[in-house]
Amino acid sequence: MSAKLTAGPVLIIGTGLLGASLGLALRPEVEVYLRDSSPAGAALARDVGAGRTDWAGRPEPSLVVVATPPDVVAEVVAGALAEFPRAVVTDVASIKADVETDVLLLAGPEAARRYVGSHPMAGRERTGALAADGSLFLGRPWVVVPHAGSSDEAINAVRSLAVDAGGVLHQLSAREHDAAVALVSHVPQVVSSLLAGRLVEAPAGALDLAGQGLRDVTRIAASSERMWTAILTQNSAPVRAVLAQLQVELSGVIEALAAAEQAGPEAPGVHGTLGALLRGGNEGVARIPGKHGGAGTRFGRLTVLISDEPGQLGQLFTDAGEAGISIEDVTIEHARGKKMGMVELSVLPAHLSDLAAELTRRGWRIVETEV
Amino acid sequence: MSAKLTAGPVLIIGTGLLGASLGLALRPEVEVYLRDSSPAGAALARDVGAGRTDWAGRPEPSLVVVATPPDVVAEVVAGALAEFPRAVVTDVASIKADVETDVLLLAGPEAARRYVGSHPMAGRERTGALAADGSLFLGRPWVVVPHAGSSDEAINAVRSLAVDAGGVLHQLSAREHDAAVALVSHVPQVVSSLLAGRLVEAPAGALDLAGQGLRDVTRIAASSERMWTAILTQNSAPVRAVLAQLQVELSGVIEALAAAEQAGPEAPGVHGTLGALLRGGNEGVARIPGKHGGAGTRFGRLTVLISDEPGQLGQLFTDAGEAGISIEDVTIEHARGKKMGMVELSVLPAHLSDLAAELTRRGWRIVETEV
Repeated sequence: MSAKLTAGPVLIIGTGLLGASLGLALRPEVEVYLRDSSPAGAALARDVGAGRTDWAGRPEPSLVVVATPPDVVAEVVAGALAEFPRAVVTDVASIKADVETDVLLLAGPEAARRYVGSHPMAGRERTGALAADGSLFLGRPWVVVPHAGSSDEAINAVRSLAVDAGGVLHQLSAREHDAAVALVSHVPQVVSSLLAGRLVEAPAGALDLAGQGLRDVTRIAASSERMWTAILTQNSAPVRAVLAQLQVELSGVIEALAAAEQAGPEAPGVHGTLGALLRGGNEGVARIPGKHGGAGTRFGRLTVLISDEPGQLGQLFTDAGEAGISIEDVTIEHARGKKMGMVELSVLPAHLSDLAAELTRRGWRIVETEV
Repeated sequence: MSAKLTAGPVLIIGTGLLGASLGLALRPEVEVYLRDSSPAGAALARDVGAGRTDWAGRPEPSLVVVATPPDVVAEVVAGALAEFPRAVVTDVASIKADVETDVLLLAGPEAARRYVGSHPMAGRERTGALAADGSLFLGRPWVVVPHAGSSDEAINAVRSLAVDAGGVLHQLSAREHDAAVALVSHVPQVVSSLLAGRLVEAPAGALDLAGQGLRDVTRIAASSERMWTAILTQNSAPVRAVLAQLQVELSGVIEALAAAEQAGPEAPGVHGTLGALLRGGNEGVARIPGKHGGAGTRFGRLTVLISDEPGQLGQLFTDAGEAGISIEDVTIEHARGKKMGMVELSVLPAHLSDLAAELTRRGWRIVETEV
């Protein structure tokens, strides 16, 4: 375990999944104290190792992290700024503009100089200190969200916290942050849920034809109603702005299809609109940064036929590993009703032919390679 | 290789990817002849082993498979029904109602008794006999599409063909088929492309926050413009019908978000509409049949921390295999900018705790388990 940048002591207020996980991530190098509106909740977090509860106002924390439920965050942040007049205060709420506005209002501009927002983009659909894990933030984006009046010292303290937790540091204004998460997270959720909702009344025979494409697009539609209703209402304006643009585009597609229905595929505007739809999609998806931080690294893909038995996958990966080639991604597609499947391995394009040759030599049946 | 149900000889007209792959799948048990409007194309398919071209009208085929480009399918089917008055004729076009209507019109109801449509849901974004593969249809849905006048003999012949090719047999009317593929394939493509198109003008800082959800929803947005423009125009009416329903739902969501913006999250209708959106998505995604043909089999998931080096995955799968547990699915998530990653393994829920115990015993760091 490496040294930490955060000096401490750190006071974490709110000891649910995020608060307790942060305590675990900082300890033992950093002195961590826990506070929760429920003493039993704080005791539980202490028992999983997230920090100490034997604290009576001394030593004064250098950093306070507010990890309470979102509806009380601004109030608790303002309270902490008042209670600890030298401490930097941050919060971990997933939507930032409203919190920032309320903190400025409640604490006043002078005290708010010590406030900088955070959004560690970690946490799954579970809650509570029992699910806490010190590696929760590892490799995940941690967005540091200063406001115009945040002091450099406060910004640096919160950046250090993000690094100490193992997060990948980003810095955006509250408005930029909320627009970004609307686009890359909240709108995709709405779109996936809308599409999956169309399946509710579909005949079973139609769903039997579902392939990997439908599964991918609807995977996140299985997400929690309670959590997402809260997120969407809290970030309503940025989400609505993107959905309104989508609606305009969708209307254009519907019109083009109506024209094709009435006047045939060569009707004016049909190919133009549908071509632009597909090209826009190609271009947009290419902008999503690739794994390993590369800007849209492309991988070569190789599809191998395997029998659907324990050990087959292990053998396949062992054989690939012995060829010295790192597998970047893998997709398993089981043939329905058959004891076999296809495994698609993604590797750097330069390694594709070597891997294909090596696997073939070892007796694997390669169905397809694609650079 | 097992025996085939198809008696043969089979004449395949059109020797691109699908035609040549079908020849490879049927041979050598079934006698296959090839015909193509380009003699060089037929010769190429012969050279990859898809069938014979030394054929001058004898022996008469028992089954003709039309695998030409979609715009000439109906005409070629009608021609084959006339040329071979005892043969059953099928085609492999991916949209069926228009072909069926045209075949009935061109061939007349009597000859059309020997016509039954097919849609083998295989083939990727590559074309040509050189890409042909006898396992292309293996485990993929093959939809047999009889019309009201198709004879039982013709239906059985085409069902046998589907089984011989290794496909998973489904049978739908042309209208049912086109509505089904609109819902499970064409509309998801439109939705994915629309969403990815919104990323084109996004600030790079926003895209840095992209997670697995966005990647999943937009993966198929990378699909071919040419292929999808053709599919969407050919199946315009069923696609438009589903998109129109989506549009109504989308408007409702936009209205609910506007209400939340103006009157707060507790405004009338906000929670109702957004809750219904999420619940509909949950319900719809649960209806997609699971792998292994189970109706939405749920898997337990276990997330393991690995270092990002060749051999690590192999060791992990070997260890899982030695525990005798079949891995149903796997997702690799690399931590950006760090040489480590998370591997999420899906297994039957009953195996989850055994696998977790076994992997822990072998020194793996388990980050999370989820039943």
